[in-house]
Amino acid sequence: MTKKKKTYKSALKEQEGITPPETLSHNSANSIKKKRLKTPSARDLVAGILDGNMTALSRAITLIESTNTEHLKKANEIIANCLPFANKSVRIGITGIPGVGKSTFIEAFGSYLTSQEKKIAVLAVDPSSSLSRGSILGDKTRMEELVKDPNAFIRPSPSGASLGGVARKTRETIILCEAAGFNTILIETVGVGQSETAVHGMVDFFLLLKIAGAGDELQGIKRGIIEMADTIVINKADGNNIKAAKSAKVEFNRALHLYPPKSSEWTPKVSLCSALNREGIEDVWILIQDYLQTTQTNGYFEENRNNQNRFWLLQTIEDRLKSKFYNSAKVKSELQAQIELVEAGKTTPFAAAEYLLSL
Amino acid sequence: MTKKKKTYKSALKEQEGITPPETLSHNSANSIKKKRLKTPSARDLVAGILDGNMTALSRAITLIESTNTEHLKKANEIIANCLPFANKSVRIGITGIPGVGKSTFIEAFGSYLTSQEKKIAVLAVDPSSSLSRGSILGDKTRMEELVKDPNAFIRPSPSGASLGGVARKTRETIILCEAAGFNTILIETVGVGQSETAVHGMVDFFLLLKIAGAGDELQGIKRGIIEMADTIVINKADGNNIKAAKSAKVEFNRALHLYPPKSSEWTPKVSLCSALNREGIEDVWILIQDYLQTTQTNGYFEENRNNQNRFWLLQTIEDRLKSKFYNSAKVKSELQAQIELVEAGKTTPFAAAEYLLSL
Repeated sequence: MTKKKKTYKSALKEQEGITPPETLSHNSANSIKKKRLKTPSARDLVAGILDGNMTALSRAITLIESTNTEHLKKANEIIANCLPFANKSVRIGITGIPGVGKSTFIEAFGSYLTSQEKKIAVLAVDPSSSLSRGSILGDKTRMEELVKDPNAFIRPSPSGASLGGVARKTRETIILCEAAGFNTILIETVGVGQSETAVHGMVDFFLLLKIAGAGDELQGIKRGIIEMADTIVINKADGNNIKAAKSAKVEFNRALHLYPPKSSEWTPKVSLCSALNREGIEDVWILIQDYLQTTQTNGYFEENRNNQNRFWLLQTIEDRLKSKFYNSAKVKSELQAQIELVEAGKTTPFAAAEYLLSL
Repeated sequence: MTKKKKTYKSALKEQEGITPPETLSHNSANSIKKKRLKTPSARDLVAGILDGNMTALSRAITLIESTNTEHLKKANEIIANCLPFANKSVRIGITGIPGVGKSTFIEAFGSYLTSQEKKIAVLAVDPSSSLSRGSILGDKTRMEELVKDPNAFIRPSPSGASLGGVARKTRETIILCEAAGFNTILIETVGVGQSETAVHGMVDFFLLLKIAGAGDELQGIKRGIIEMADTIVINKADGNNIKAAKSAKVEFNRALHLYPPKSSEWTPKVSLCSALNREGIEDVWILIQDYLQTTQTNGYFEENRNNQNRFWLLQTIEDRLKSKFYNSAKVKSELQAQIELVEAGKTTPFAAAEYLLSL
């Protein structure tokens, strides 16, 4: 924690040269500093965020991640006030199974982006992090350079039992990061389970990181994930690996041709890189710019964001309806008995459902 | 329809030798016949079903498929009374993309089963059937023999806009078929979309039908479906196709080894058949009997049915909660406006959801 705070502070110092947005800019980083020992108000935090203050941003995100009702109320107020300043970014999802070198890639790619005058936020969606205490992005030693970069903001995955909860918190965090001036959002997720789908549903561009060789048959067979990818980047294309990486490129290109054209009118591309040697990193960014050019021209970019918003609206409603139902005292006390009746063949699942719904 | 009725009638005649279950047997097929012009009561229909009367069974299924509230009430009463006589069957799911010869396979497999003194019911889950007017099992000319078989009951997929609705109706239909004495239930589904998952969730054994050759790479890449299969049967292993079928068998066997062991402790097997030439059909049944032996001994068979029931209970609750919410007048009138506010960046999907939930 001490280390993190230091990073934010030093980042803050270096960011003082950045022009603050006009709105609410009278409430600046100074007022946040003065009030550090007190709890800053929603208004203070909004001002700090719009000012690009990373401490304010971090504190607001902590409110989003809280389970305390008062905190959430405050978080909602902050989000509502940041919303008009959000959306002006490109959101990039990065997935890949453990071992493909995600952290090294993000370190290299992120540093390249900040060298191009981008302000980047690195977030993560890892529903298992409540158990593993933040495995993703936890090992910040792998992102040594980015951690010290004043134009980079790194935040580990929010913890939470459910993917839905984690995804919601990350989506809201994106809004705050954008309002704080971060124009390139990288969202990392581990390539297992349903979390890729959640991340795919909150980004403009979806990057699948792979390596040639071991276990690749199995990687390749995950149809759904390959289908979601806007690009497949084969990492570790260096040393003795180059030949294998090149043949993997041919193979993935062939695999991509098996899928029907995307509604984005974008043809997914396969590229090679060595994050370790910082090779092929710029190519990835050029590719993403191509994608943005295509989809902003044909209208898909905006349409996709609208579809994502609609999806999250409906998803949130459904999550809430369920949690309200299952947490009601009557249902809690009768659910198990109904399950037992069903198992004993005394009632059907449908009749049991009707009964529970009638409570 | 005329043809279908004739089939039921002739089946009825041939079934008169079957011993009726003791309960309610005073109310026999005769009373159903007498009351044909009137609407039979739930009690009449239950009696008919327990008597193995296919007309009564068909009428009761029609009630399950109705959208009329009175019909559904009656259907629920019938199901509740049939439930004690259900469950004594093996439920087999059969899936495969169009062109693998599902109908021919079911014709051959079904006829083999009835020759082994089994009573089979052939049902289908095809959520698109409301549009295509029952593509699955619609073309009964492909099941000429089975249609005339007094020990076979064939029912096309219920229509319905949602997979959930279709799946529910099919599950309830299984109960009635079992109560009517059908001890082997075949449930067909087309190998696209989510319907395999629904069928997998209502059967004891899941059979994936394939053919060698064209498009097989794509078939093979559907990881989820291969993972669900308890057996892969390669059909059309005849004539010039035999060699290709044999090499496909090797390939699928290899693919199956990539997956972790199943909790059923059953190792999925690949077998060859020619439904057209009635070859390899008995092998499939021997394999299923092996599976039943394994899973009834280790307890998985019952555990799986319990898990399925729990799944359908929760699924039904969730479907109902959603449909109640979205059909409420207030939500109907405000949902679109909230979606537009989200799209205009005036509110977040989460805030809009909260607002709609507060109505």
